[in-house]
Amino acid sequence: MLEHGGRLQRAAALYGIAQDQWLDLSSGIAPWPWAIPAIPVRAWARLPETDDGLEAAACTYYGANQVLPVPGSQAAIQALPRLRRSGKVGVLSPCYAEHAEAWRRSGHVVREICEAQVDFFLDSLDVLVVVNPNNPSGRLLTPQRLLEWHARLAQRGGWLVVDEAFMDNTPALSLADQCGQGGLIVLRSFGKFFGLAGVRLGFVLGERKLLQLLVEQIGPWAVSGPTRVLGTACLLDTAGHQRQIERSAQASERLAQRLQRFGLPPQGGCALFQWLVTDKASQLHDFMARRGILLRLFTSTSSLRFGLPADEADWQRLEQAFNEYLKETP
Amino acid sequence: MLEHGGRLQRAAALYGIAQDQWLDLSSGIAPWPWAIPAIPVRAWARLPETDDGLEAAACTYYGANQVLPVPGSQAAIQALPRLRRSGKVGVLSPCYAEHAEAWRRSGHVVREICEAQVDFFLDSLDVLVVVNPNNPSGRLLTPQRLLEWHARLAQRGGWLVVDEAFMDNTPALSLADQCGQGGLIVLRSFGKFFGLAGVRLGFVLGERKLLQLLVEQIGPWAVSGPTRVLGTACLLDTAGHQRQIERSAQASERLAQRLQRFGLPPQGGCALFQWLVTDKASQLHDFMARRGILLRLFTSTSSLRFGLPADEADWQRLEQAFNEYLKETP
Repeated sequence: MLEHGGRLQRAAALYGIAQDQWLDLSSGIAPWPWAIPAIPVRAWARLPETDDGLEAAACTYYGANQVLPVPGSQAAIQALPRLRRSGKVGVLSPCYAEHAEAWRRSGHVVREICEAQVDFFLDSLDVLVVVNPNNPSGRLLTPQRLLEWHARLAQRGGWLVVDEAFMDNTPALSLADQCGQGGLIVLRSFGKFFGLAGVRLGFVLGERKLLQLLVEQIGPWAVSGPTRVLGTACLLDTAGHQRQIERSAQASERLAQRLQRFGLPPQGGCALFQWLVTDKASQLHDFMARRGILLRLFTSTSSLRFGLPADEADWQRLEQAFNEYLKETP
Repeated sequence: MLEHGGRLQRAAALYGIAQDQWLDLSSGIAPWPWAIPAIPVRAWARLPETDDGLEAAACTYYGANQVLPVPGSQAAIQALPRLRRSGKVGVLSPCYAEHAEAWRRSGHVVREICEAQVDFFLDSLDVLVVVNPNNPSGRLLTPQRLLEWHARLAQRGGWLVVDEAFMDNTPALSLADQCGQGGLIVLRSFGKFFGLAGVRLGFVLGERKLLQLLVEQIGPWAVSGPTRVLGTACLLDTAGHQRQIERSAQASERLAQRLQRFGLPPQGGCALFQWLVTDKASQLHDFMARRGILLRLFTSTSSLRFGLPADEADWQRLEQAFNEYLKETP
């Protein structure tokens, strides 16, 4: 298994700090979970049925004509590579590592490329995978650029897969409304923006026939009944969406400013995290962890991802730790 | 997609009866769902972590040394065929149809065989799949017989896959405690016995290295956080298990007696359903559905599966419908 953020149990054991004592900034999940609505017993008890309102709510929310709910966009990442015979797959990197891993596992030849290489390699690829905004760099590509890439791939029967796990804060830049086009597949995550990563919900947007093939891979009843009820309510709460967008933007901006002030200007970020590239990444990760603050360390790029603090107590704790860090490592 | 029970939305549309007016006996799910315990916000909000108590509770409940939680045993049915190169797979039939479908989808050659043919075919098979107790016939094979089959398969590197989705009522007949042996894989369903099919939980019991390969296929965070909390509580509730076993046995026996009394003796059954083979299956299914009682019709075997009524009101409604049926079809 690959490394991920959110592994609080392991950190708790490693640093001898009880789980409930941590400030966990290691994931890019919004720290303000939506309130859990009343969930009827039948949602727990009965086999979940499709078209119960969840698909319709998601179509409205994403501005898409058809969607496939999946138990987390991770489930789609695992399943998509099985829908094509072995081919050449480009993954715009560095990004969320499960993409390259899943395509390799299914026997595809994967080349991890940087943005400047896309034009050179594109016409030799069967599939290009892009995380937009990127995780962890925050780099955001324009719809125009992505649609150009898609057009070049699609004319040869290729796919553009766009993982929009962190797109909810900037919906105008989503390709969700373009997904009727053949060969354009958009993955959306529910848990990050809504702060409910435990419920396992995501959506695949794409051509109807592709979604049908995908559902055969993933199988029936993949999304739990309580998650379907909760997901429907959250996706319809338009006032809540606006509030979450605003407070995420404020917190992310404040986080970037704090890092700057502490002499650690972030390399990039988006509304749900900031990304710091520093040769002291490993050392800073350990320093913070010894104080019960969990960050996400990427050893390969010597970088750290900071999720958003939830409230003033969290901010003060983070800032105090930074002050101590500056004192100890002048 | 294959046909399944529990499709109440479709029945409601087809018969013009609102969903909440139905007596749904179309699934084999116990009609007494466990009470939903308090679920902490963190279970909804955070990415689920493994080894949070669920695996340990399941090991105790099943009497197994290691288990892999999956989002419904269906997820394992989808994934298992991908762990072997194409081979010859026998499925003891008729049974839950997703098994044969999943092995075929992964490129295996599937032969559906009856019990009397197993000895003849076994040495030519790479994998034998058995649902025990069988769904829908209720036929229960002894551990001794299954272990003999397993030994013959395992000596050639083959697998015996035993789907024990309906085994919770007869735990002494489970092979769960034998699953350290190579090539023996047991699937367990959580939702049926605990009456909580909406939460999507099941377990795979098998050799540790097999479970590791399976988790790569299914991916991280497959089981939702609330489901993990609820599953742990239910699996540890030993007093509740006994009560559920007793009331299921009583209701199933009562159901068999009623069917007998109405001149429709069941062909088989288990603690969670009865199975009626009759050339009038389709007609009886329609007759009941027009009265808002949903049964599971198997057209290929001209048979019906009856789940358990939950309470006296349900019993009376079912019996009244039978009385009407006998009057109208003397």
